[in-house]
Amino acid sequence: MSVQIRQAGPADVPALHGLVAELARYVDALPHFTATVEAYQKDFEDGFYHAIVAEDDGRVIGMALYYFVYSTWKGRMIYLEDFVLEPAYRRRGIGQRLWDTLQERGRERGCKLLKWQIVDTNTEALKFYAAQDATIENNWLNGKLEL
Amino acid sequence: MSVQIRQAGPADVPALHGLVAELARYVDALPHFTATVEAYQKDFEDGFYHAIVAEDDGRVIGMALYYFVYSTWKGRMIYLEDFVLEPAYRRRGIGQRLWDTLQERGRERGCKLLKWQIVDTNTEALKFYAAQDATIENNWLNGKLEL
Repeated sequence: MSVQIRQAGPADVPALHGLVAELARYVDALPHFTATVEAYQKDFEDGFYHAIVAEDDGRVIGMALYYFVYSTWKGRMIYLEDFVLEPAYRRRGIGQRLWDTLQERGRERGCKLLKWQIVDTNTEALKFYAAQDATIENNWLNGKLEL
Repeated sequence: MSVQIRQAGPADVPALHGLVAELARYVDALPHFTATVEAYQKDFEDGFYHAIVAEDDGRVIGMALYYFVYSTWKGRMIYLEDFVLEPAYRRRGIGQRLWDTLQERGRERGCKLLKWQIVDTNTEALKFYAAQDATIENNWLNGKLEL
């Protein structure tokens, strides 16, 4: 196995978009996936997000997409927005390598915490995070409003 | 009443820090408020957060602290991290003016959604958000890990 972990550049954006599209199709939710590849490209250039990719023989087969956020109590944090690995590449430690690299990116920028969200039905993800000694909190509600 | 709403500049950072400190003291949680005013200053300069302030006669009496985040499905979003208004200034529509300005900041940057979190025991905040026609979701868990 020759899977490489590296920082995503602008040329990887279509592959990032493709991984999300594949997942949206898999969960039969394509109508909710409204972000276009053109928007992804512009938003990447404008620094709205960053990504670490896993690449096998020149093809991107996984990603950890993240950005930096802020806690008024704790300071700088790194936020994992999306974590995707093609099914055929799971259970080989690739997710762990993406995860470890993500933590490194946070430390490099002086972040005190890594944060993320998990939908409460995603038992596979909950098992992974439990193995990372993560704290999972269930007393926060998400608010959202369309602009 | 002459309360002004305006964008925070570097000179407002000590006041932002002071509002959070006051709240941390009020809820008897000062040991958990570890971010220093020096860190706030550097993080503001480095673009980790922005704020809209409410000012009365030259004194900052409220703030909406925010930053920009990203949804792989929906694209650009604006995230409200902290919303503080001194008790004496509540129920006068100042929170609404901060909230409306926040939405405007989101639209200006092409955000599709405003997002935030509320702890499930904060009934006062839940009432405010219900009046804003916000969607409140209870099926997400927060994950965190110290770096």
